[in-house]
Amino acid sequence: MHSLNFTSESSSHGITERDFTVGDVPGVLWSPASGAGRAPLILMGHGGGNHKKHPAMAGRARLLVNGCGFHVAVIDAPGHGDRPRSPYDEQEIAELFRARAAGEPEGPIVVRYNAHLAELAVPEWRATLDALQRLPQIGADGPVGYYGINMGTAIGVPFVAGEPRIAAAVFGQHWPEVLAGQASRITIPIEFDMQWDDEHIPRASGLALFDAFASKEKTLHANSGRHKELPRFEADSAVLFFARHFGRAVTAQI
Amino acid sequence: MHSLNFTSESSSHGITERDFTVGDVPGVLWSPASGAGRAPLILMGHGGGNHKKHPAMAGRARLLVNGCGFHVAVIDAPGHGDRPRSPYDEQEIAELFRARAAGEPEGPIVVRYNAHLAELAVPEWRATLDALQRLPQIGADGPVGYYGINMGTAIGVPFVAGEPRIAAAVFGQHWPEVLAGQASRITIPIEFDMQWDDEHIPRASGLALFDAFASKEKTLHANSGRHKELPRFEADSAVLFFARHFGRAVTAQI
Repeated sequence: MHSLNFTSESSSHGITERDFTVGDVPGVLWSPASGAGRAPLILMGHGGGNHKKHPAMAGRARLLVNGCGFHVAVIDAPGHGDRPRSPYDEQEIAELFRARAAGEPEGPIVVRYNAHLAELAVPEWRATLDALQRLPQIGADGPVGYYGINMGTAIGVPFVAGEPRIAAAVFGQHWPEVLAGQASRITIPIEFDMQWDDEHIPRASGLALFDAFASKEKTLHANSGRHKELPRFEADSAVLFFARHFGRAVTAQI
Repeated sequence: MHSLNFTSESSSHGITERDFTVGDVPGVLWSPASGAGRAPLILMGHGGGNHKKHPAMAGRARLLVNGCGFHVAVIDAPGHGDRPRSPYDEQEIAELFRARAAGEPEGPIVVRYNAHLAELAVPEWRATLDALQRLPQIGADGPVGYYGINMGTAIGVPFVAGEPRIAAAVFGQHWPEVLAGQASRITIPIEFDMQWDDEHIPRASGLALFDAFASKEKTLHANSGRHKELPRFEADSAVLFFARHFGRAVTAQI
């Protein structure tokens, strides 16, 4: 059992940011600077080629911490951020860039590579959640959510499918080939984002992955635009989704 | 040119409710009780078999008036609320009840009957908007939105397609057979609600109607559940949609 070691701490604009490690895995925990009581925890998975403190992660964390008083944790995925790339990582990334340059479909490579990363990352997430729940301000019985788009979905779907501690999740923008079977074991409330004019993920594939979730309550948000044009207001919507399920009023104007 | 005649007025919980007529058409205008300055106007279309003050209309109006300080107007559709039914209304309603009792599809009847009502209602909406814009607290150049689901979409899509004064709209839950052609002339931002397990509107039909809008910015919200199970939080989402487009902060916690 790995424990959580804090390696640095800073505060600004009402948010405390603490870097940590759990075993070899580096992560970041954002929390309300003023919060003393326990609060729900949102685990966030970053996108492919990004890292735990990418502006998309920090921006969503700000909304969740300032808006709802939640704790938010992100860890670097294998081969990402502060973690070394393996020869297999290098090979798949080279293959992805080659396909992109040649105008070939990215899907088969992303699906295969992300499935590999998910196999490594799921036990890392489980150990991270174990360690986070031993912190007094989080605790073992508080609500936990998961929020990850793109590669954050490729890792998050198998993680959530086998993790009864996650009570609500926001996913989106991935292919159904590997994930649909895992999604069919997920029954918690979900919000799912897709891009209506995604040049990489066919529309029918996005709809099929949403359809696969067994959740009684699930909401699809499909926006016009290409793969990288997911609107910023979907982050506001995700905050409202977690606030609704975890019983927190949104106190900031969003 | 019909003018707007107020016929009664009451206030409660910070909202002024004024009944009005424009020609023969009865309507209701909900406004902030305290508001002196101009504010955006949201026109709302009610569902089939309902009326201008149905709880769904009053509830959405409360969110829009209290949350954003907007004005909200609803008029009774032809044959609905305080308006007389024609022999053709009676005939179509009887046919709908017969089909429902026999377990036959409702779609063809609803599509045909709603298209008939829309032909009557579109000029009524235009005259109502003309008259509302002559009120000093609304004015001729302020933002105007439209919000109508079900029959409110069957009337709203042709209304908005020919009405350049509408700047943003929330639609949903109708068939594409009549409306898709009209939707293809609509370019303003829209939010569109559908039910993923709608027993009346086939999934592909709901998706086809969303797809038909020519809007650069459009968002589909598809929720699990049957036709009548559209979640209440979609009304909150519609309020945020109008607040975003009309530049108003949401001041109530929703």
